[in-house]
Amino acid sequence: MNAAPLPTYADVEAAAAVLEGVTHRTPVLRSRRLDERAGCEVHLKAEHLQRVGAFKFRGAYTALSAFDEEQRRGGVVAFSSGNHAQAVALAARELGMPAVIVMPHDAPELKVAATLGYGAEVVRYDRYTEDRPAVAAAVAQERGMTIVPPFDHPKVIAGQGTAVKELLEETGPLDVLVVPLGGGGLLSGSLLSAGALAPGARVYGVEPEAGDDARRSIEEGRIVHIGTPRTIADGAQTTSVGELTFPILRDRVTAVLTATDDELVATMRVVAETLKQVVEPTGVLALAALLAGRVPDVTGRRVGVVLSGGNVDLDRFATLVGGGA
Amino acid sequence: MNAAPLPTYADVEAAAAVLEGVTHRTPVLRSRRLDERAGCEVHLKAEHLQRVGAFKFRGAYTALSAFDEEQRRGGVVAFSSGNHAQAVALAARELGMPAVIVMPHDAPELKVAATLGYGAEVVRYDRYTEDRPAVAAAVAQERGMTIVPPFDHPKVIAGQGTAVKELLEETGPLDVLVVPLGGGGLLSGSLLSAGALAPGARVYGVEPEAGDDARRSIEEGRIVHIGTPRTIADGAQTTSVGELTFPILRDRVTAVLTATDDELVATMRVVAETLKQVVEPTGVLALAALLAGRVPDVTGRRVGVVLSGGNVDLDRFATLVGGGA
Repeated sequence: MNAAPLPTYADVEAAAAVLEGVTHRTPVLRSRRLDERAGCEVHLKAEHLQRVGAFKFRGAYTALSAFDEEQRRGGVVAFSSGNHAQAVALAARELGMPAVIVMPHDAPELKVAATLGYGAEVVRYDRYTEDRPAVAAAVAQERGMTIVPPFDHPKVIAGQGTAVKELLEETGPLDVLVVPLGGGGLLSGSLLSAGALAPGARVYGVEPEAGDDARRSIEEGRIVHIGTPRTIADGAQTTSVGELTFPILRDRVTAVLTATDDELVATMRVVAETLKQVVEPTGVLALAALLAGRVPDVTGRRVGVVLSGGNVDLDRFATLVGGGA
Repeated sequence: MNAAPLPTYADVEAAAAVLEGVTHRTPVLRSRRLDERAGCEVHLKAEHLQRVGAFKFRGAYTALSAFDEEQRRGGVVAFSSGNHAQAVALAARELGMPAVIVMPHDAPELKVAATLGYGAEVVRYDRYTEDRPAVAAAVAQERGMTIVPPFDHPKVIAGQGTAVKELLEETGPLDVLVVPLGGGGLLSGSLLSAGALAPGARVYGVEPEAGDDARRSIEEGRIVHIGTPRTIADGAQTTSVGELTFPILRDRVTAVLTATDDELVATMRVVAETLKQVVEPTGVLALAALLAGRVPDVTGRRVGVVLSGGNVDLDRFATLVGGGA
């Protein structure tokens, strides 16, 4: 149980000040062909062009820069084999602190290499016999390090909120916002920014159809836990939302929608053909729901969509999008 | 023989005024990882994000908007199965004039469909028994239409020059510019802009190694004609530079370099992985030469590179980049 207070938009503003000059102010992409296809005005926040190729760097850097002197000397532990790992590794390097990333022994070598490339130490564990949080906790205790979780942390949420803050500052108030949803860090932060900068906007989260725990959690009014969902959206294979992200979602989100793997692949193709962008499966969750006609009442509206990440192995990308329309 | 006077930077400025609000002011992309790899500061002008997915729209729109009343009523003919065809089709639609694009009977259906989608009429010819310029000339005469060639036209050259004009306005003077080279329209226009805005810069053109006619033309001091080169850079499969582009290249280019098909594929991979961008083989010609170490004396320099287009069939893209590093 996490006893931290819920973050507010003031925390997002503070995070934006910390990130100034450190993160990219990613572009907002437009396409007339995409607008015609979606039947609305689509404003795409291109977080796959963020440093490390995903919005995750915003939250990681925000969290790490809030460390006190002792924590900085000790360094940071994260457990992730995805974008959060690389984000923590790079943020730690930039802030001059040691970092350990706990990864399964069978993690893709590409991701291990990328994490090592950012200067972090990788500690492997056996995913069949060991519990990852326990391994991370042991490393943290042994070495005096601080764990930074991937989403259920007030500074992480505040940092992720800066993406939609930038989007709304550039576009002005939008009618609708659509945001990818795994553990809810990005969506929570987006809800804080939308509440302050576009209070009339409807905000939807989109999770993989195979792992619709957030939708069910909202419905049931409690955090629903599921088994690891089978989906190509590997960045949203979370088994539950968090203690901090849940109440923000519950109180503020308009609705939680889903997208299927087939819709993700079709959307990756549209994004590559129309926008010439490489976006990972998780990264197109929100756009996939929009193009599948699952976001209500968008015709003629101004719609903001977050493309959240672009880290997909190129051979994998080629296999997914190369199969014909 | 083309008797038109050579365009100057004043023509580029006039083209920029015509294109204001019509073309996209495409972004200049940066990547620290790419800089490390290239050993210099790389500023990428992202013309694959231009309308129709290539710089060609700049020149086509500039040429068509210079038509007089009678020419506008008659409309435009172009012969191309590539980006120039789509650029002319869209420019004609925007300017409200009829357009005919002459394409071989075996042109890819995707490109035919795209051209039809922009509202142009497609006239097929048999590439084994008919001569394309002759077919275009016959259409032009029968229907009172005006032919707009893909590169050897002063307004086309002036229009293409606006890409590097924008780049240099955004970056300030650069030490080196590297530009893809087929018929020389983009390079000629770039040389005019560089001469005015970065007079100290070295400017290199890069053509496919299999079709190094421009390099030989500069060396021999006359326009060298070659057979259609076998290269995946289909936008640069020209058999010679033009009567207008040649003197501009001869008098102003620092040197003409080449890139192999293997280097183009490797560069497409780098661009997809590092920058998350889909760029066609022709579009990475300049960057490929830079990454192959073929551009002299770049270490620590500020280098501008044009990514010229992104129109590659997605299955083809997947096949090219998906083969492993």
